[in-house]
Parts: sequence; structure tokens; C-alpha cells
Amino acid sequence: MTDILTIILGAGEGTRMKSDHPKVLHKVGGRPMLGHVLAACAEAGANQRHVVLGPNHDELRDYAKSVDSQITSSVQADRLGTGHAVQQARATWSDFDGYVLVLFADNPLISPDVIKDTVESLDHGADLAVVGFQTENPFGYGRILVEHGQVKAIREEKDASSAERKIKFCNSGIMGFKANCLRAVIDEIKNDNVKGEYYLTDAVELANAQGMKVHSVECPFVNVLGVNDRAQLAEAERIFQGERRAHFMKEGVTLVAPETVFFSFDTKIENDVVIEPNVVFGPGVTVEKGSHIQAFSHLEGAHVGPEGQIGPYARLRPGSKLAAKVKVGNFVETKKADIGEGSKVNHLSYIGDSKIGTGTNIGAGTITCNYDGKNKAVTEIGNNAFIGSNSALVAPVSIADGAYVASGSVITKNVEKNALAIGRARQENKENYAERIRARWEKSE
Amino acid sequence: MTDILTIILGAGEGTRMKSDHPKVLHKVGGRPMLGHVLAACAEAGANQRHVVLGPNHDELRDYAKSVDSQITSSVQADRLGTGHAVQQARATWSDFDGYVLVLFADNPLISPDVIKDTVESLDHGADLAVVGFQTENPFGYGRILVEHGQVKAIREEKDASSAERKIKFCNSGIMGFKANCLRAVIDEIKNDNVKGEYYLTDAVELANAQGMKVHSVECPFVNVLGVNDRAQLAEAERIFQGERRAHFMKEGVTLVAPETVFFSFDTKIENDVVIEPNVVFGPGVTVEKGSHIQAFSHLEGAHVGPEGQIGPYARLRPGSKLAAKVKVGNFVETKKADIGEGSKVNHLSYIGDSKIGTGTNIGAGTITCNYDGKNKAVTEIGNNAFIGSNSALVAPVSIADGAYVASGSVITKNVEKNALAIGRARQENKENYAERIRARWEKSE
Amino acid sequence: MTDILTIILGAGEGTRMKSDHPKVLHKVGGRPMLGHVLAACAEAGANQRHVVLGPNHDELRDYAKSVDSQITSSVQADRLGTGHAVQQARATWSDFDGYVLVLFADNPLISPDVIKDTVESLDHGADLAVVGFQTENPFGYGRILVEHGQVKAIREEKDASSAERKIKFCNSGIMGFKANCLRAVIDEIKNDNVKGEYYLTDAVELANAQGMKVHSVECPFVNVLGVNDRAQLAEAERIFQGERRAHFMKEGVTLVAPETVFFSFDTKIENDVVIEPNVVFGPGVTVEKGSHIQAFSHLEGAHVGPEGQIGPYARLRPGSKLAAKVKVGNFVETKKADIGEGSKVNHLSYIGDSKIGTGTNIGAGTITCNYDGKNKAVTEIGNNAFIGSNSALVAPVSIADGAYVASGSVITKNVEKNALAIGRARQENKENYAERIRARWEKSE
Repeated sequence: MTDILTIILGAGEGTRMKSDHPKVLHKVGGRPMLGHVLAACAEAGANQRHVVLGPNHDELRDYAKSVDSQITSSVQADRLGTGHAVQQARATWSDFDGYVLVLFADNPLISPDVIKDTVESLDHGADLAVVGFQTENPFGYGRILVEHGQVKAIREEKDASSAERKIKFCNSGIMGFKANCLRAVIDEIKNDNVKGEYYLTDAVELANAQGMKVHSVECPFVNVLGVNDRAQLAEAERIFQGERRAHFMKEGVTLVAPETVFFSFDTKIENDVVIEPNVVFGPGVTVEKGSHIQAFSHLEGAHVGPEGQIGPYARLRPGSKLAAKVKVGNFVETKKADIGEGSKVNHLSYIGDSKIGTGTNIGAGTITCNYDGKNKAVTEIGNNAFIGSNSALVAPVSIADGAYVASGSVITKNVEKNALAIGRARQENKENYAERIRARWEKSE
Repeated sequence: MTDILTIILGAGEGTRMKSDHPKVLHKVGGRPMLGHVLAACAEAGANQRHVVLGPNHDELRDYAKSVDSQITSSVQADRLGTGHAVQQARATWSDFDGYVLVLFADNPLISPDVIKDTVESLDHGADLAVVGFQTENPFGYGRILVEHGQVKAIREEKDASSAERKIKFCNSGIMGFKANCLRAVIDEIKNDNVKGEYYLTDAVELANAQGMKVHSVECPFVNVLGVNDRAQLAEAERIFQGERRAHFMKEGVTLVAPETVFFSFDTKIENDVVIEPNVVFGPGVTVEKGSHIQAFSHLEGAHVGPEGQIGPYARLRPGSKLAAKVKVGNFVETKKADIGEGSKVNHLSYIGDSKIGTGTNIGAGTITCNYDGKNKAVTEIGNNAFIGSNSALVAPVSIADGAYVASGSVITKNVEKNALAIGRARQENKENYAERIRARWEKSE
Repeated sequence: MTDILTIILGAGEGTRMKSDHPKVLHKVGGRPMLGHVLAACAEAGANQRHVVLGPNHDELRDYAKSVDSQITSSVQADRLGTGHAVQQARATWSDFDGYVLVLFADNPLISPDVIKDTVESLDHGADLAVVGFQTENPFGYGRILVEHGQVKAIREEKDASSAERKIKFCNSGIMGFKANCLRAVIDEIKNDNVKGEYYLTDAVELANAQGMKVHSVECPFVNVLGVNDRAQLAEAERIFQGERRAHFMKEGVTLVAPETVFFSFDTKIENDVVIEPNVVFGPGVTVEKGSHIQAFSHLEGAHVGPEGQIGPYARLRPGSKLAAKVKVGNFVETKKADIGEGSKVNHLSYIGDSKIGTGTNIGAGTITCNYDGKNKAVTEIGNNAFIGSNSALVAPVSIADGAYVASGSVITKNVEKNALAIGRARQENKENYAERIRARWEKSE
């Protein structure tokens, strides 16, 4: 198989983002924009990946490495255009024998199909493949000029004739080169333009001049939507979410108000799950068949087994693993919590670093005290146990099968199987004392 | 008065829903689609109702019976078209003297007016009344061909001439028959078509052939919107909610962000109620004049008296009955809770199976411990009582008028009028002990 | 400088609001409509302000006074039109030497620019300046008839010729007069029309008749959007929010789902703040650079320092002052709480009337018991302290630097520096007692 190298341009300053962070680390669907591009590369089978960074982009390089340990990078110290950016990656292509695709790190909605279609165009004989999109409003985009299947040039708005301006097939910037073609043209690109930059789009005319085949590939506009400011980031997010919502509805998930449910890039939901309005899925969530996610729930890094009852106002944090028919109710937070089939945590509780068996009931206001200011410790609760309301379980502690904790208890010692634990003060009633309190208040006025 | 029989077709498989449940049990505005159709029948005065079910639709029949104990049903074992479906209901109309209306269980936005207008058309002489709608995009719908007030035929898209394709008056599928007319045509319907099905729409031409009067009735498209997949379900919900929001605003309710407030089919709200963004109403809610429902509140089966202050993040569950000027604040859940005028439950509390008098203050973090693992028990709190923060009230227990519970108490015994109850451990301070703990941690590193 | 008097017409009954409160007290962006108009007057430098009220508008006058102590008011007992309303304010302009601008209290999206542009028109020679807007759908609006720069008349729809009906420049109702001009025309206005009212728009033709200069000023339609019912109120809110969202995104704030974030008129957010879906800002909020506001948070009267971590489900109430890097997590309410750098209140807590130092950790379920039924008292917690989970801190109480409160404690006495405080009952385990409880239940069945 042909080797495929993707060079991802990510050096842009992104000044319109007004951010201290590299532009392409801003997220869409819970994943940095660059992450989406890397995922598309992986899915499309690009076996070599390279990212061109700006100076001071350590944060970006670290991220790229964290999701793709094989990725290489180079730094474009001076931002002198896309042609110049590709030159910075010279080490990757100077001796390379295969296809070189130039992608953009700020295209978060890129699809693997764009990469595959470009590869296919090169497979079918193109020396250079230009990726374009059709639009009803081409104003401002470079037009792709095609004659008899050969792309002759990419014409910028300002240079276009009035006939050319009517062309609706526009340049996305993405290109695929046979490595020889790239080497033949890249250093011929000139910077004799207003900005003094080296534009990779000039490769089209240079390749034509050398008699090479330049073909075009068409993709949907959204796949090459570039993000340059926070409004465009929000727009990309909107499109991403719209696509995910349609997908899940098609797969048999009820979204009562689709526009109020927010998914992450990796959310997995089975059919007959009902999701009420206003639910947010952070990364790493799976929900199995028949579960009901009520309004105002927030899930991240969590697994919900079949026929779960979640929310409203449930917050499942990373490490929450719910077996079948678990109920997590309002104002409940779970974290690193393994909860067995049919168990219930219905109200106002914090269950952290815990393992709970099957058929157990955790009363309202139960708090696992998993942190002592230094270390986290584990709470274990067995099957068919009952934790009375407003109890504090001071970890490490274990409560065995069938045990019963009286309401309002502070539990610091293990509770044996079927035992009753009680840890609360005895109540004292003082007759008419409330009246005395009120009398005192009145006096002090 | 003429007897009116509605035959509701609900046997469809709904495969595009990808659901284990019958399609028409999926909900719009908190009520199954079939429920909306049954409600329209009831409101329009249809005195006999019948539903045609698919095989394995026990869940559907049970639901129909639960909302309309008089409804009868039949099973359409083989799904051979709408004509065939009506034949399954033969027992209802074979000796019937009145009007027979054929409705669809997957039309959740049906209005009683559609039924009334159809009845009126029959009253005015029609033997058969066909319900249609006007649309700018008739493509794909059967066109209703009318000549001098007589409906001649319903023409499917594929059979239509180019002139007929321009007709924008389309068939909804809903029809009203005089019983004699139905009996005269129903068994004449043939299945000599591609799918081998019996289409009730053929009744139009058959009735014409017999010299009967076939008239048309027009209704808005939304009333006959059919739901076949989850996207259409969401679309029906969107239309339903839009209508409700407009209705309440017209009635003097402020919706700060209408598109974020979700009503149920039976929600009742009086004027000068202000509803902040992101509020969800489950079934059975009434809110009286001048109340303020703050953001992120979730109400179901609850009554809010005048000038209530609810939320943000208040969850009122079924059986919550709030008198005038009650305040239920953030992260508070109430269930089967009768709360007297001017009482306050401001923060982080669970009030279940409780009766609270007037002018009482429930402190932050109060939990009614109403469940012992087996039974629910009641907490009674009188007027002008004060429950200190973070108290646990272990039901059954009663706290009388003017009583005072000290913060952090576990209350297991009744508290008399004006008494002070205290049930908490004495505090012990250990000098420099925190330093020792930290020293121990350091050592263990 | 020329004196500028703004007369704000606010006497309208607003019957379509169906409200017991004056129409212009209904809010947009968390501020009454009249408040927006008063803010525009202040920003545009109007040095005299007057509001014309309806009878029984005491609530409105009190509000006006509360935000503008210098404002004067008059009452329009009979609502006989805009000309009549300006006559009620005669005391303000009968001896006035300057500009008189007539504004409408139900234009919540008014911009100071409208006032400034009107003043500029008067500065440039107009005796009367008429404010209009361009619209593609002029139907129903009064058209502004301009000839050679002179406004000749304002023509109502019903009186307009078909040529005049094509005019898209429409009357907003806002006008600016040189005081002499106002005095010259105001009492000439007649009520010989269907409604028997005095229309200020007649001033245009009267001024023309006296040879005065009548010019026009153009402003965007939204600036003069009038609110007459709750749907229009929601529309004004929608436009307001849209403008704010665009503004913050432009300034470098990430709004994951802009349409789900609601700002108040005075919200301030710095760049690199990320705001997740479903966040509501009440009045008086400032968020500093780099903070992350997670979903479902509700902030009001709160300051969030740089790099704060807020939510999800955090409720910051008035008086919450968070230093840098403070974390306030899920189901946490803060009120009058001064929280030092790096301190954390992660879960299910109520922190009210409190001062917390730096680097302190407040455990899950901590409640400051700040109210004794009569008075509020203060909780002070020092630096690097640790409050164990599910503790109740009964104010007034202070916990010094480095102190440690054991989980589940009720703290009523001060805790010294580095001391350990423990206030919980000793746990008792009763072997097999849970089995006995269950046996008893079975027996009772």
C-alpha cells in the first residue's frame, strides 16, 4: 500500500480568538480541533502524521503527542504562508515515496472521507489533487478553475474575472500531492504578492506548467469549515451537535428537545434510550438500551447499564459504572463508583471511590467521606444493604451485605453482614425552650 | 344526537422508531401519541371509541384502557393496509347507525376541531368526508381531486398527471363515513396494487361509483402530522411546545426564553407568573398567579400557590402542594409534601411524605428520613417551627407549632409545642492534632 | 452645552401584557424596560429626565426614582395620546431652553446613539428631528415623507397613497424638539380623529406650516422595538441576548452553545473564559480571565476571580467573592461568601455569610448554619483548613488556619489553629439486628 503522510498546518496565531491558548486546542464536541483532524487521519489510514506548529506552541505539541505518540512536528517560526509551512516539514517529505496530504488543524469537522477521496484521486492518476466545495455564496473564496478535468488554477476573488466569479466550486486549501510532484513545485512558489507570503495554492499553476495532472475532489462545505474566532467555533459546535442529534434519533434514541442535548465526540447511546431536555454528555459516556436520562443531567466518563434511571440533576463523573436498572436521582454526584444492579441513590448524595453491590438503597443526603485532606479512600457497600438518610460514611470503611445503617449516622467502623450500625447522638427535648429563645430575641431588639 | 364512532388505527409496526415499544406509546408533551388522539375524541364528543392494534401490542391496549375504560379494540394480525385495518373493526360498525371516523394513532397533534368539522360535513349531507390539508410542498402526498364540491378521487403521486401534481390540497388519511356508506364500500376495496394492500382511500372512488356524496374537510397540516421516526417525534414535540409557549405568553405568563421551557399537555399556569430559562414541567402541574419559577426547575404533579418562589434547581415531585408564598429553593426535592403558607425550604433538602404548617423555616440540608427500607412514614411539622440546618428528621415523627430543632440534630422523637430539640454530639477540640495528622502523612510518603 | 431634557412616555396601560404590574417594569436582560431607557439617557448625557406615568403607577415611579434620584414625573390620568402625554409634562418644558426629546419607556433596546444622533440633528439646525427606521415590511407603520431633506409629514397606513405605501422609512415615534419649536406646536395639535386622541406626530406638519426645519434621523429597527405583550417581551429578550452573546464571543469568550447562555445587562466576562451550555447570569456578575463555568450554573451578584472552576450546578448568590483559582462544584450554593485563592467547595454544600481563607478544602455536604430563625451570623474559616464531609458549622463560629474538622461533625465552638475538632457520636454495631428488622417487617405483612 502507498504510504500516506498528512501534514497538518497548525501554526496559525488565531488572533481573532483572543486567547492565550493555541487556536486549534479549542474544543468542538469536547475534543480539541486538532484532535478531530488526527482522528480523521487515523480513520482514513494515514500512516505518517506531522503537525506544523507555531513558536510557543508547546501546549499544542504536547496535546498532539498525547493523542498520537507517533506524530512528528516542526515549528514555523515566521508565519509566511501555507507554502512556507509545508517547507518547514521538509524532513518528512524530502525522501518520502508516497502521497503527501496537506490538512488544516482548524477544520474540526473534517471527515475521513475527504482524505480517502483525495487518496483515491491520486490513486487514479492525479499528481496533485485539490479539494474543493460547492457553495451558493462563493464570494471571497478562491475559485477552482477546471478545464476538461484538469484544474488549471485557483483564482482569488480579487484576481477573478466576472465570469470566474460566478464559479461556485471553491478552494478548501486541502491538497494531496504525489511526493515527486510536491518536490517539483514547492520551492518554485514565490512570495511576490502584497503580503509577501508563500501560498501553496500556487502549486496548481506550477504543476500545470510542468505538465502534471491536477485533479479536483469535492467535499461538503462543513467538512472544511475553518474556525478563526469564537463565533465560528460555536458554529462548528452547532453543526457537530446537529449531526450527532440526527444520528442518535435515527438510531432509535428519543431526544425530547434535540437542540438542548449536547454530545461529545465519543458518546455512545443505544436505542430506546429517552433523553429529556437539557442533558450534557462530556467525553467517555456509554448509555445502554432502555435507559431514561432525565432533564438537567451531566455525564462524563460514565457507563449507564440497561434500563437505568438517571436524573433529573444527576451528575455522573468519570469512573461511574452503573449496572442494569440502577437509579441515580436528583442532586446526586457519583465518581469512581461501581454500582450494582438495581441499586438506588435517589437524592442529594455524593458517592465517590465506592463500590456498591446489588439491590442496595442509599438514603437521601448520604455522603461518602472519601478524602481526608491528603488521600482518597474507598467505601465498600455490599448487596441489599440499607444506608439511612443523611449518613456520613467515613472511608476506608466497608458495610457488608444486608447491613443497615441508621439515619443520621456517622460510620467510621466496618459494619458486619446483617448488622445494624448506629452512630448518632441521643435526642434531648427542652420544654418551652424555643419560647425562651424568642423572648431573648425580642428583648435584644 | 348522532352516534359517533372513532376507529383509531394503531397497528403500525413503526420500524423506523427502532423501538421495543409500540410506536404510538412514544410521548409528545408528556403524553403518549395515542393519548392525544383519545383526548381529541373525548373533547369532540365521540361516544364510541375503538383502537386497532398490532399483534403483541398488549402494552398499547393496556394504555388505551387505562385512559379510556370504555374503549374497545381489535387486532390486525397481518398489516394489509388501512382498508384492512378498518375491516378488523367490523364488529363495531356492522350494525352501527351513525358516523364512523377513521383516525390515526400516530397523529399526536390532532385537534378536536378536525373531528368536529368532519362530523359537521356528514351532518351537512356528505356520505363520506375526506380530511385534507393545504401545503406548498405537496410532493409525495396523495392529492384530493375535487370537482364542483364533490371529491372524485385521491390520486397518489406516482399515478398523478402533471396537472394533478400541482394540486396542493392533500390527503391526511382521516375519513368520516356514514355507516351505510362504509358498509357499502369497505368490502369492495381491492388489493390489486404493488404491495398487495387494501387502501381505505379507494373508498372515495367506490362511493362515487355508487352515486354517494363525497365532500372534503380542510385542516391545518400540523393537526395530521404523522410520526414515523424519532426525528418526526421531536418535530411534533417542537410544534406542540411552540403552541403551548405562545398560548401561555398570550395569557400573561412571562417566558424569558420561551424555547427553553417545556410544558406537558396538562400544564396550567396563571398570569403574572415569571418562568426563567430552562424549566421543565412534567404532567400534572398548576402554578398560580404571581409565582416566580427560577431557572433549572423541574416540576411534576405539583401545585404552586400564588406568589410562590420556586428554584433555581427546585424539583417538585408528585404530591407537592404548596400554599401561597411558599419558597422552595436550590437543590431541594419535595415529594408528597403539603407546605403551608409562607413556609420556606431554601436549600439542599429533601422533604418527602411531609406536612408542614405555615410560617415554618426548614434549614439548609434538612432531610426527612421517610423510608426505613420497607415502609414510608410521615413527618409532621407545625406552624412557625424552625428546623436547624443539616438536621435529619426520622419519620414517623412530629414537630409541633413553634418548636425549634437545633442545627445538626437527628430527630427521632416527637417535639412538643415550643420545645427545643437537640440531638447532636458534643464537640471536642484536640490541640495541634491537625499538625500531627499532617506530620504522619509526610512520614508515610 | 445645550441642556437636554428627555421625556419618557410610560403611561401606557399595557393591557395585552395581562399583568398587575406596569408594563415597562417587565424585564429584559434582568432590568426593567424603563431602566434600559434611563441608562441610555444617562449614557447619552441627557441632563434632565422626566417620566410620564399612568395613574396607579406608584410602583413605576418608585422604580424610576430608585435608579435615577433626579428624575421627575407627571401623571397622565386620561390616556389621550402621545401629544397629550407631553402636555402633562408641561412644567418641565414651559420655561426650558434646550432640547426636548420624547422617548418611550417600552423601547428596551434603545441605544444611546439614537439620543446622540437626535441631538446632533438639532445641533445641525433642525427645529424638530424625527427618528425613523428602514424596514422591508413597512405595513402598518407610519411612513416618514421626506422632500429635499425636509420631513413633510408622517403618514399613517390608512391615509397613505399607494406610492406612499411603498416608502420603507418608518416612524419610530421618537422625536427631538428645540424647546421653542415644541412650545410653538404642542397646543396646536387637534384630536379630530377616530379615537379622539392627540398625536405628537401631528407636530411635523404643524412645524412645517410654521416654516421650521424638520429633519429625520435613522436608527436600526431593534433600537425602537416596542413591547406590548409577552411575546414581544420574549422577542426583545432574544435580540438582547443575541447581541450579548455575539459581543462576548468577539471578546474571546467561548460559548459552547451560545443560544443556551443568558446574560444580564451588566454581566462582565473576560477573555478565555469558557461557558458551557445552560448557564444563567443574573445581575451583577463579573468573571475574570481563564475561568471555566460549567453547565447548569446560576450566578448573581458574584465575582469569580481568574482561573475559577465553577459548576456544573453551582449557584453563586449575591455577595459571593471568589479569589483566583477557587473551585465551586456541583450542588453548591454560596451567598455572602468571601473565598480565598485556591480554596475548594466541591460538592453539595451551602456556604453563607462566610469568610474562607486560601487553600482550604470544604468537604461534601458541608452546611454553614448561618441562621438561627432570627439573625444571620458569620462563619470564619482560615487558610489551609480542612472541613470534613457532612459537617455542620453553627455560626457564629471560627475555625483557624490549618485546623481540621472531622467528617460528620457539628461544630458549635471555635477551633484553634492546627487543632482537630470532632463532634459526632460514637458508632455502635448491633449484630444481626438488620435481620431482626426484616423479620419484623415480614411478620407485620
